[in-house]
Amino acid sequence: MTRIHIQELRDNIGKKVTIAGWVDIRRDHGKLIFIDLRDVTGKVQMVALPFNKEAHEQAGAIRSEWVIEVQGNVNKRPDKMVNDKEENGDIEFEMLDITVINEARTPPFEVNIDTATVDENIRLKYRYLDLRSARMQRNMKLRADFIHTAREYLRGQGFIEIETPLLTATTPEGSRDFVVPSRLNRGKFYALPQSPQQYKQLLMAAGFERYMQLARAIRDEDLRADRGFEHTQIDLEMSFVTQEDVINMVENTITHTVEKLGYTIREKPFPRITYKEAMEKYGADKFDMRTEEERATGVLAYAWVVEFPFFEKTDTGGWTFTHNPFSMPIPEHIPLLLEGKNIADILTTQYDLVCNGYESGGGSIRSHRRDVLEATYHIMGYTKEQTEQSVGHMLEAFEFGMPPHGGIALGVERTIMNLTGETALREVQAFPMTRGGQTAVMQNAPGELTTEQLLELGITVIKQKQI
Amino acid sequence: MTRIHIQELRDNIGKKVTIAGWVDIRRDHGKLIFIDLRDVTGKVQMVALPFNKEAHEQAGAIRSEWVIEVQGNVNKRPDKMVNDKEENGDIEFEMLDITVINEARTPPFEVNIDTATVDENIRLKYRYLDLRSARMQRNMKLRADFIHTAREYLRGQGFIEIETPLLTATTPEGSRDFVVPSRLNRGKFYALPQSPQQYKQLLMAAGFERYMQLARAIRDEDLRADRGFEHTQIDLEMSFVTQEDVINMVENTITHTVEKLGYTIREKPFPRITYKEAMEKYGADKFDMRTEEERATGVLAYAWVVEFPFFEKTDTGGWTFTHNPFSMPIPEHIPLLLEGKNIADILTTQYDLVCNGYESGGGSIRSHRRDVLEATYHIMGYTKEQTEQSVGHMLEAFEFGMPPHGGIALGVERTIMNLTGETALREVQAFPMTRGGQTAVMQNAPGELTTEQLLELGITVIKQKQI
Repeated sequence: MTRIHIQELRDNIGKKVTIAGWVDIRRDHGKLIFIDLRDVTGKVQMVALPFNKEAHEQAGAIRSEWVIEVQGNVNKRPDKMVNDKEENGDIEFEMLDITVINEARTPPFEVNIDTATVDENIRLKYRYLDLRSARMQRNMKLRADFIHTAREYLRGQGFIEIETPLLTATTPEGSRDFVVPSRLNRGKFYALPQSPQQYKQLLMAAGFERYMQLARAIRDEDLRADRGFEHTQIDLEMSFVTQEDVINMVENTITHTVEKLGYTIREKPFPRITYKEAMEKYGADKFDMRTEEERATGVLAYAWVVEFPFFEKTDTGGWTFTHNPFSMPIPEHIPLLLEGKNIADILTTQYDLVCNGYESGGGSIRSHRRDVLEATYHIMGYTKEQTEQSVGHMLEAFEFGMPPHGGIALGVERTIMNLTGETALREVQAFPMTRGGQTAVMQNAPGELTTEQLLELGITVIKQKQI
Repeated sequence: MTRIHIQELRDNIGKKVTIAGWVDIRRDHGKLIFIDLRDVTGKVQMVALPFNKEAHEQAGAIRSEWVIEVQGNVNKRPDKMVNDKEENGDIEFEMLDITVINEARTPPFEVNIDTATVDENIRLKYRYLDLRSARMQRNMKLRADFIHTAREYLRGQGFIEIETPLLTATTPEGSRDFVVPSRLNRGKFYALPQSPQQYKQLLMAAGFERYMQLARAIRDEDLRADRGFEHTQIDLEMSFVTQEDVINMVENTITHTVEKLGYTIREKPFPRITYKEAMEKYGADKFDMRTEEERATGVLAYAWVVEFPFFEKTDTGGWTFTHNPFSMPIPEHIPLLLEGKNIADILTTQYDLVCNGYESGGGSIRSHRRDVLEATYHIMGYTKEQTEQSVGHMLEAFEFGMPPHGGIALGVERTIMNLTGETALREVQAFPMTRGGQTAVMQNAPGELTTEQLLELGITVIKQKQI
């Protein structure tokens, strides 16, 4: 008999069907044995009646998390047994024949337990059990829906999805790179991308005009609740645009996507606030505009922060960029940048998107002129030679017909945290690492390499006492 | 005046509009100056007439690959001037006012040149120029369309898109891993994923039932025309399925996708051939079933290869897996595997998808039983302890309610090569590496690390003469 999903049961009341899934809970009332069965589409209460001896006996032997296939009747519950608060609380599945597909040991924690009571490392080691919970199933499905809806919208706006490399060069964008030793070029290293910043600018040089990618960003930063080594961003870039064009495109994309998913945006168009105002009003460049009541109901308070200073002082008295060295200053400050005057006053075209207290994305209009990028590096104390070494390939690209362009990167995890109310990154990624940076579910990587592997890469490991 | 795209010109005949893009070719006939302008949507011939002095003068100064914005009239060409073989050959754009957005140096090669005449490293260094060509624009757009169409179909079939980690543990799947030194766990290394094989199986343990991902696969293999360090696969896995279910799902997905993109499949359902027959008939497990005429017209000859031997002899006389240690044998050979008998005769549930001479994908029904995976490793000469160390986490997952499952990985690059007729991987990736494994367009990574970086990672580089 063809198997159907639990969500299809309601369309099959009065019929005999087969379902399969995991045993959520078994309650043995002697005469009646109840089993809640769970599949990817939902949950249903099943019952084994005493006059059906075989099914009753089978049901008695079954334990939590076993995988079973059950043939049975879909019955409407009598009115007084209907439970409106329960999923499928108006039907009951009468078990006629049970096939055990795979048994299960007693799990280290109950699948739908309050995870605050479970040791985090145990939860991550048995992540496949944790992911069976209603909460994690919802989070992962919502993430897939969000990505799908945003991508579909952008495609409709003419964006072309293009993948950029994972093995690449180090970037001057701030965080620490993860590096990858090269066997073919022994003693040398690739870097994993902190973002596809330069590649997406080169795609604008290549004439694609509207690029997008669900880009993987990898940074060797210290781990925090809302920050992991890996995250994903909706990465996009547009040519022949102003700051206003990009902001509008992003605002339309987000509005379309979250409203389609059933969420409410607090204020449209998104309010804009300058960095200066934000610091005066909130003391920070990310802030939560929701009132107390709104926090309870889950509205999304998006806002743009604009007019950031381009540069800030370093510890050693020099200048460094606040956000992105590849940004353009605002048009009226280009002369200041080129002349290196009033550096503290130069404002960048950077726009940060804030939502419910988190920085949800950030972007800018990019430099597409050699003189602007050179002046930026000059202010940061780079010699001509150092600038050439760091971004010479970009300067050269600017000389072969680079269009004006700008873009943004929107954090997927931060957004899903806002949509779900989760406060930790690990709740919205399928297989996050432990706080110690280990892949708990998978052999506790990182691990040691063999001498042969190290030799092939032309590296050795420093013994701990030597460090 | 709002800018429109070149593909919209035909809808604006007789009107005054603005377009922008790159100068493809300029032909100066003295009185008439012709400029072919290119944007992401197409190409059009523009003309500067002598009586419009300013535009004529501006047009005379313009060179190839400059970025310009032009205001002008969209004119229908007189009948005798119509060129059916040319894109937009029935219209002409009369330039009235030209704005130079960005100039360009003389490019190192013409954008639409026959690339066989260009040094490969030069082509890759100036990849953004190469990507402007009609051929590369088509390849990248087709790739985006293919991915989109396949993903949309799978989503309609209930597949949930889930991302798996890039920093992970080494896998016993055959190729050489790229590794990533850990700063938090000095002297230890993550591996980059050769495939999400184990994660997708764990997602089946997690109850997602149908998973898909455009997965990045990274392998330190020797570089060949059709093989790079990085490639992308349509990765999918399904629970409660047989080999037949997966094969049908994949066949439907591919058929839907390539036919929607306008391609023709030679034979449906895809013919199936056993490994033994393939070796007898073609002498290889990948082959081209097309006739000579079909090769010229570009039909897609898909076929499945099934009934592969599970094991093959190693150089040292032991046994190793032919495809994937996580596969199930065919049902009737499970007893042979468990008893370790007639090892050479054991057939696996592996199915390889072949198209026009390339291996286009491969998958299998997976092991979901401890005894089967243990027996597989036992045959390969692993002790209990070694098996535990290699796949202990998977064996443990099998004990907590693992459903039967199977899946496949379809190579995106190989497919786009088949669709376009390209024979090299670099023609269907945006930023491929050189044959020497360098990121030509981006600072020629890999590069050297500083002493501080190395120290932080707890590694040193072996001096060349020491090796």
